[in-house]
Amino acid sequence: MSPTWRDRAAALPDRVSIREVGPRDGLQSEDPIPTADKIRLIDALSGTGLSRIEAVSFVHPRAIPQMADADEVWNSITRADGIRYSALAPNLRGARRALDAGFTEIEVVVSASDTHNRNNVRRHTEESLDELTEILAVLREAGARSEVIVATSFGCPYEGDVPVSRVASIIDRVVTDGADRIAFGDTTGMATPRRVAELLDVVRGAHPDIPLLLHFHNTRGAALSNVLVALEYGITEFDASVGGLGGCPYAPGASGNLATEELVHMLHDMGIETGVDLDALLRVAELAETLVDRELPSGVLRAGPRTRLTPKPDGL
Amino acid sequence: MSPTWRDRAAALPDRVSIREVGPRDGLQSEDPIPTADKIRLIDALSGTGLSRIEAVSFVHPRAIPQMADADEVWNSITRADGIRYSALAPNLRGARRALDAGFTEIEVVVSASDTHNRNNVRRHTEESLDELTEILAVLREAGARSEVIVATSFGCPYEGDVPVSRVASIIDRVVTDGADRIAFGDTTGMATPRRVAELLDVVRGAHPDIPLLLHFHNTRGAALSNVLVALEYGITEFDASVGGLGGCPYAPGASGNLATEELVHMLHDMGIETGVDLDALLRVAELAETLVDRELPSGVLRAGPRTRLTPKPDGL
Repeated sequence: MSPTWRDRAAALPDRVSIREVGPRDGLQSEDPIPTADKIRLIDALSGTGLSRIEAVSFVHPRAIPQMADADEVWNSITRADGIRYSALAPNLRGARRALDAGFTEIEVVVSASDTHNRNNVRRHTEESLDELTEILAVLREAGARSEVIVATSFGCPYEGDVPVSRVASIIDRVVTDGADRIAFGDTTGMATPRRVAELLDVVRGAHPDIPLLLHFHNTRGAALSNVLVALEYGITEFDASVGGLGGCPYAPGASGNLATEELVHMLHDMGIETGVDLDALLRVAELAETLVDRELPSGVLRAGPRTRLTPKPDGL
Repeated sequence: MSPTWRDRAAALPDRVSIREVGPRDGLQSEDPIPTADKIRLIDALSGTGLSRIEAVSFVHPRAIPQMADADEVWNSITRADGIRYSALAPNLRGARRALDAGFTEIEVVVSASDTHNRNNVRRHTEESLDELTEILAVLREAGARSEVIVATSFGCPYEGDVPVSRVASIIDRVVTDGADRIAFGDTTGMATPRRVAELLDVVRGAHPDIPLLLHFHNTRGAALSNVLVALEYGITEFDASVGGLGGCPYAPGASGNLATEELVHMLHDMGIETGVDLDALLRVAELAETLVDRELPSGVLRAGPRTRLTPKPDGL
């Protein structure tokens, strides 16, 4: 006899912390939009109850022109009390720029797949890990909190499956090097319930105390099922992107990031708090759709929450 | 300490039976297509390893013009050995037509929500249940297998939440009346992991032996998470629609049925057999997209399975 919903719900987290990544991970895969629109988007997100927003990345403008105005965006938004804003830095130079800009939470990236890492930053995973050692020391010395995002944690579009043991050894290394937190990036939507569970089986056992965050793309429709498994493992931190902003570079037309409102919608229905006002978030998703001028893939944006009723037809 | 993936997988079914509903539930919500194209679609589906196909419905052509050619479609397809083809009948007249056409598996429908039932068939749920008593007797006498689909089992777009006790009492009634099988219809995509679990908690306890089938729409992105919960309850039968054929009448632009290839993709990755050749199914999804002449919402159709690799960029 399987446990009832009441038993299951009691074993799940009471609260989940969502990091909104639409302004960074989302917009970097959309056609560039004006600086003023980015500021408008972030300020709107700051009013939804979200407690964490990844605002910008400090990456070379030739690599990602969408983030060329990172400093201006960061200096122009209205920073709300109680919200943790963070920036992504692909290398030491970016990390220093993020520190100079005043960020105290900084994400750095390495790809578990060597081919993917070489395609991203023209160096082997091992070389990136060596640079990470230096970056993590710089961040720690500056008093900033560091998070290492392990891209392609659930598979690589060039290499296919990435062995869990390889991801695990990267975690071992960066934890030793002083990473404060770890994020697993489902870069091209290859995560499945099985892959999530298999990875967490290993990592949770090896590093029971380090905070873990999961970042899913909904490329193959499985994002919320992956979240469900992660919740059962006690994971309480997830990335998501308002409206599902952000495409998938390897699959034109495929949906990218998990939409924040789909995540909030499912969690609230399960009785898990997020602090987010879903109606306010949906208004921002509408704004995001206007700003990028395309229909975003979020189902909850299209159809509305399940609690939003349709007027009864005449005569009923 | 939560169980490992190996423990979890061992507790899941080894095999799932998928009923393909694209030709019926899918096409009835698309713009009408020619009879020859419907035949082509069903014949293509018959070659994918699917073991069950809901082929047509016998409904008044004024209500659903897309199914006006049900007899012709059914008489013209090439029925493959080992595939169970079924038809949906909304009323006694439709059930008799389905029997006359030679169907031996027939789905009948009642909506758990009274408003939804009245909107569909202009009568109260109770009145439909009275007619079901008669239909089930006719089907049993004819030696056909009957399935009662309980629409709006997870919520009604007009009434909102439908109490589990109401769905459960409908099940009690139709089981007493001789229904061979029960399907729970997530008519407008209001199911969530919680709602699925809460319903199965009650129904599984009351009727441990009757076959149950779950029919999810992906309107709010939760379809595969709902499947995951249902698998944990031992459910082994699911509806799905190739390519995600079929819109949602209450939410223009929202995705409708769970795409068969997204379901197969997740199940196979979990080591659960379906008998379906995913590559063959994807070719049919492409065909379906051509036949309805619009981009279908299936992520696995867009991006390909996670095992389909991208060629490495030059120099890597």
